[in-house]
Amino acid sequence: MPPAGGPMHPVVKAPESSRFLKLPEDFALQGAESGSAGATFPQGFLASGMSVGLKGSGRPDIGILAVSGEWREVATSAALFTPNAFAAAPVVIAKEECDLGGLSAVVVNSGNANACTGPQGLQTARSTRDAVGEVLGLSPEVVAVSSTGVIGEQIDAAVLSAGARQAAAEICPDGGPAFARSIMTTDRFPKVAAGTVSLGSESVRVGGCAKGAGMIAPALATMLCYLTTDAVLSRQEAARLLEDAAERTFNRVTVDGEMSTNDSVFLLASGASGIKPSGPELQRLAAAVEAVMMRLALMMVADGEGATKIIRVSIEDADTVETAETVARAVADSPLVKTAMNGNDPNWGRIMSSAGAALPGRRIPNASLQLCGVTVVERSAVCPLSAQQRKQLATSMREPEVEVCLKLGLGTADAEVFFSDLGHDYVTINADYHS
Amino acid sequence: MPPAGGPMHPVVKAPESSRFLKLPEDFALQGAESGSAGATFPQGFLASGMSVGLKGSGRPDIGILAVSGEWREVATSAALFTPNAFAAAPVVIAKEECDLGGLSAVVVNSGNANACTGPQGLQTARSTRDAVGEVLGLSPEVVAVSSTGVIGEQIDAAVLSAGARQAAAEICPDGGPAFARSIMTTDRFPKVAAGTVSLGSESVRVGGCAKGAGMIAPALATMLCYLTTDAVLSRQEAARLLEDAAERTFNRVTVDGEMSTNDSVFLLASGASGIKPSGPELQRLAAAVEAVMMRLALMMVADGEGATKIIRVSIEDADTVETAETVARAVADSPLVKTAMNGNDPNWGRIMSSAGAALPGRRIPNASLQLCGVTVVERSAVCPLSAQQRKQLATSMREPEVEVCLKLGLGTADAEVFFSDLGHDYVTINADYHS
Repeated sequence: MPPAGGPMHPVVKAPESSRFLKLPEDFALQGAESGSAGATFPQGFLASGMSVGLKGSGRPDIGILAVSGEWREVATSAALFTPNAFAAAPVVIAKEECDLGGLSAVVVNSGNANACTGPQGLQTARSTRDAVGEVLGLSPEVVAVSSTGVIGEQIDAAVLSAGARQAAAEICPDGGPAFARSIMTTDRFPKVAAGTVSLGSESVRVGGCAKGAGMIAPALATMLCYLTTDAVLSRQEAARLLEDAAERTFNRVTVDGEMSTNDSVFLLASGASGIKPSGPELQRLAAAVEAVMMRLALMMVADGEGATKIIRVSIEDADTVETAETVARAVADSPLVKTAMNGNDPNWGRIMSSAGAALPGRRIPNASLQLCGVTVVERSAVCPLSAQQRKQLATSMREPEVEVCLKLGLGTADAEVFFSDLGHDYVTINADYHS
Repeated sequence: MPPAGGPMHPVVKAPESSRFLKLPEDFALQGAESGSAGATFPQGFLASGMSVGLKGSGRPDIGILAVSGEWREVATSAALFTPNAFAAAPVVIAKEECDLGGLSAVVVNSGNANACTGPQGLQTARSTRDAVGEVLGLSPEVVAVSSTGVIGEQIDAAVLSAGARQAAAEICPDGGPAFARSIMTTDRFPKVAAGTVSLGSESVRVGGCAKGAGMIAPALATMLCYLTTDAVLSRQEAARLLEDAAERTFNRVTVDGEMSTNDSVFLLASGASGIKPSGPELQRLAAAVEAVMMRLALMMVADGEGATKIIRVSIEDADTVETAETVARAVADSPLVKTAMNGNDPNWGRIMSSAGAALPGRRIPNASLQLCGVTVVERSAVCPLSAQQRKQLATSMREPEVEVCLKLGLGTADAEVFFSDLGHDYVTINADYHS
């Protein structure tokens, strides 16, 4: 019987970097080892993570990330939330009652999603926020709440508030790793990333952490992400930067297609570096934030429940970007493609079938398909493969990262999506684990 | 190592009737046992099924269904095909070169889909059609071809044509069961249905068979269906009848959402009863054809790869039928819902989350959810359950048919979709079985 917080997973090391990750020239990413400071790598942040007893396992289940007191006046923030019609109580409170451009702290609990919990759940989220505000001397509207875990169970508000007070009392400059661990549910490893952006003779820092380990495609499992920088940003700059980066990162792993009741992404800019980038320097900072988010997004795919690999599907030469995206998502979401990938099976017929199903009523006579660099389809028909090509395919399919490239021959638009495979462990986690 | 035609499945008995099947008053459905005549139950049809060696297992892999000679002049037909952009060669030939309102025969091979096979595949389909036409004395355009099986392998046209000739030579009035078996791939049981419609003092017969055992939601596995009646129908009546019935049956099991490269549905009306229904009698015939199709569609869901149950999700009180359908399909396609169902887990939180994800940006404050008749959500929040209710839920979730009803509280529009669960056997069949 697994504990209430989720089934027991061996905590494994985060994968070393990905060849799918393109780093900007001016950006030096820190190592991904669990010791990385993550969200507290930039200056001006404090964090904590501990157990308040929401998870039966006794694992950490409450965490706080806050701007340190001296930077509250200049700090800005931005946030993105799930569009789910049954959005959880903390999401409703954040959207309706928080000053999302001027947040000073976020309190997160794992083990209970506080979703489908009605007025009582809203009150629980408010009391948690108020408790943190009291300890940190913050007005309620600059404290946001996140929750992740089981849907439809009321949290004991007294327990949670007491835990929030304790966590608030323990925030410290090196609390990033503890914070990252406290937001985990079925994650097999903490997801942290951080780095330094060179802006001429000066530099600013970017950091962050995330959780999310469900099947990535219809990301019903909650995705939470907390990003930080010590650059000085206006509210508008923070909002624009976060939105653009999410579009090119989390949205590429099809996380936005079907968001859970709790999905939330926050960006906090402390301003503690004293550096206010603008023009090309702001672009470099944006590229760095995007790189950190992409690193976290790829870690989420790699940690997809039961996943053994990351697959990149690129749709090229489409007539429109919309066509390319639609086809890419159809391939990425196909259970038949996902299971074939799990079996290391170069079953390109399933890729063609799922792509063709996303283009109803059309005739595509000049499609070509490359699987792990081997052309398997040309002019929409099978290519005979040499024995060597078959051997190469069999080997490449076993790699932890697999590339699929479908050229539609319709135009010049491209799109790519990253997804994980589907294996027995996914079923074990989700069918054999009872709510 | 499974044989080329698909993994070995124990051939099991088709499930007895379904409580989800509503039969018209004037229609008497025959038993579903494998001895049912199926497509040759109506008068005026001949059929056969045999092995030509396309499947390594030696199981039947070619079949023919034909209107008997004396009824060819009055017989009519209709057909529906996959909109997949990479439609298989036989589908292309049927759409472009056949007289779909006046077909006299259909030849079907299983074990090879003849998809993504280019000009050579088109030629193979043509030669198969021509071979059958020669033996039966039919011009090529009144013979259609269907294929199902592996994508992207050329069929040996000489072998297939020889087999088609042999199958054509062996058609007989009681060939329906053999035909039904010859079209199977990973199906665990043949899918046949037939019955008699009372039209006042007279009666006509309806019959049919189908194959399809993939995951139903994104039905990438091929669905083939052959329906027959001995009523006299005009071409227009046949076409209208087939389209309407498909909308209310196969489209409710989400088979049309993502169609495979080969999906095809045929209706042949021999006219052998001499009865030409019109007005209310035509409606009764239409209802009977719909009942036969629904029976076959439910058998396909029950035979979903690894499926242990059929789930009906009803979305009620939506603002529009489109909203209701979108939400129903989102729930039916959610891997998290499907795995929970496999584990007999009343995890209604996953149902709410997948439904909410299909309604982005909306607030639905008055949703209620019944799972197996137990109200688990009211006013969009969890209802406390009594011990007895929990016990009832635990028992009902183990039934072979499970009902989910989500009332959105937005209006009066409804929609329902039938789907299967997702378990280890699905992964075993699709990941462990290599192409």
